[in-house]
Amino acid sequence: MTQAQIESPFDAEFVEGMRSIFEDKIVFNRLLGLKMRALGHDFVSAELTMKPELVGHFAYNRLHGGVISAALDAMGGTACMAALGARYIDQPVDQRLAHFMKMGTIDLRIDYLRPSIGERFTMRAEVLRLGSRVGNTRMEFKGEDGKLLAVGSGAYIVS
Amino acid sequence: MTQAQIESPFDAEFVEGMRSIFEDKIVFNRLLGLKMRALGHDFVSAELTMKPELVGHFAYNRLHGGVISAALDAMGGTACMAALGARYIDQPVDQRLAHFMKMGTIDLRIDYLRPSIGERFTMRAEVLRLGSRVGNTRMEFKGEDGKLLAVGSGAYIVS
Amino acid sequence: MTQAQIESPFDAEFVEGMRSIFEDKIVFNRLLGLKMRALGHDFVSAELTMKPELVGHFAYNRLHGGVISAALDAMGGTACMAALGARYIDQPVDQRLAHFMKMGTIDLRIDYLRPSIGERFTMRAEVLRLGSRVGNTRMEFKGEDGKLLAVGSGAYIVS
Amino acid sequence: MTQAQIESPFDAEFVEGMRSIFEDKIVFNRLLGLKMRALGHDFVSAELTMKPELVGHFAYNRLHGGVISAALDAMGGTACMAALGARYIDQPVDQRLAHFMKMGTIDLRIDYLRPSIGERFTMRAEVLRLGSRVGNTRMEFKGEDGKLLAVGSGAYIVS
Repeated sequence: MTQAQIESPFDAEFVEGMRSIFEDKIVFNRLLGLKMRALGHDFVSAELTMKPELVGHFAYNRLHGGVISAALDAMGGTACMAALGARYIDQPVDQRLAHFMKMGTIDLRIDYLRPSIGERFTMRAEVLRLGSRVGNTRMEFKGEDGKLLAVGSGAYIVS
Repeated sequence: MTQAQIESPFDAEFVEGMRSIFEDKIVFNRLLGLKMRALGHDFVSAELTMKPELVGHFAYNRLHGGVISAALDAMGGTACMAALGARYIDQPVDQRLAHFMKMGTIDLRIDYLRPSIGERFTMRAEVLRLGSRVGNTRMEFKGEDGKLLAVGSGAYIVS
Repeated sequence: MTQAQIESPFDAEFVEGMRSIFEDKIVFNRLLGLKMRALGHDFVSAELTMKPELVGHFAYNRLHGGVISAALDAMGGTACMAALGARYIDQPVDQRLAHFMKMGTIDLRIDYLRPSIGERFTMRAEVLRLGSRVGNTRMEFKGEDGKLLAVGSGAYIVS
Repeated sequence: MTQAQIESPFDAEFVEGMRSIFEDKIVFNRLLGLKMRALGHDFVSAELTMKPELVGHFAYNRLHGGVISAALDAMGGTACMAALGARYIDQPVDQRLAHFMKMGTIDLRIDYLRPSIGERFTMRAEVLRLGSRVGNTRMEFKGEDGKLLAVGSGAYIVS
């Protein structure tokens, strides 16, 4: 996956910095195999490819619910980072990316709607509000056919 | 890990069946390395050992929030299974374990209280109510020193 | 408020039955002053007018958070009822409305985004999935200017 | 209800200030009829008496779910205030009570376990963690017989 494939209104250096954090530097995200697809001023979208380790009960081929909650948590945090990146657009890239270090998930809710079976899944998180201390996001997890499989909401501490 | 180390009022065969589902058959749980420690009539406790793949941002040594949500989701579901195992105590073990196949997480909330740093973590889920269709649970995630690092609530479809 | 003002693809008798439950028969909804505005096959919208009893701290003129959570819970349940009304479209109205009696909120999450100040608020709930046992909804609470003030998700037991 | 009946390790003036906010100044709490019973360094307990306006569907005598969510939100916020009152124990009472003005609910989850039928209900909120910006609480709503009817978790912005 190269940065060139990520749709974004942000400058290439910021996008590459965000991609690198999201896909590589967050070790557990790398284990899940999350790939960034678009990075907007208040949203992010990404993809996840099924693999055997991500399965819940071995007798089925469903994604483990924990993979979905982990992925949607990562998505919500990244959407807040994008919104911080837009807010501090005049800061150097390093400084904008450093906001990531001070972020944290306050809490998370995931609603599981349908069994997650398939080869590929898409995710999207949008920022509903970015305050001075708290960011609120809404997340969606979909199958290849666009069917909604899970939704989430998260609150993040930002600064 | 052998079943002998799991404290439980249940018969050994049911406990071993539950342990096997929780630790081995749920593939993603095995990836996380969850180990069952006690299985009561309305609760379960377990342990998780830190390893490099479970880290969030590489520059820190914190557990990824998604590991915690995945683990607590698995814990809540297993506590409901234990309560079903107690409800249907007169059924043969196979039949009691088969209820697992019809369970599913309706939704989940995780509150992250403190950074999860350490070598070993303990988890506990208790069933607040087991209805005919829905089970409600409350979960805790603690450090080795017993400090509360995260809490959760879950609703599960049971039958 | 007469039923004529409620936009709906449903027959007038069902709409009037639903309005009557939502606005009158649910006593606490009447206390809040909720008014139905539209009733679709998988959504409902409504309105709330500010009044002194609904204020939080007396020194401000903000709506109490509990008014918002109560209103959004009622909205989610009503959206599920609409979806049940659509599913059982061939049943007589009485029978369709009777499903209401067997419904219940499993759980609810509310995210408060901005202080709720104003004379009039609008709400909308949509059904994300209506299963055989559980309905999942997403709700929004907006100011007169259309600004999002709070969002919610709910899970409801249906049958 | 007089302040003398509120069990508390805090000084009488602070307790009376807190009672007055909780029972009187928050207008919607007064409408619900919430009465403070104990105010600890990290918890609060209170009581609610059934009355006709608080009913859900008129054909039943159940408390409306929105009454429970409103009450538990108020409880969580008050528990955070108590914890702030303990943290800033050396400040004059006015100043300690003024923290209330800067507080707000970030989000709330309520799990409804059993139908809330009865003459009198008790509630308790405890602070799981009070950080510099966010407070996390867990709440319980019980019947007169001590049976758990609903539980909740909340995140609050504090400063």
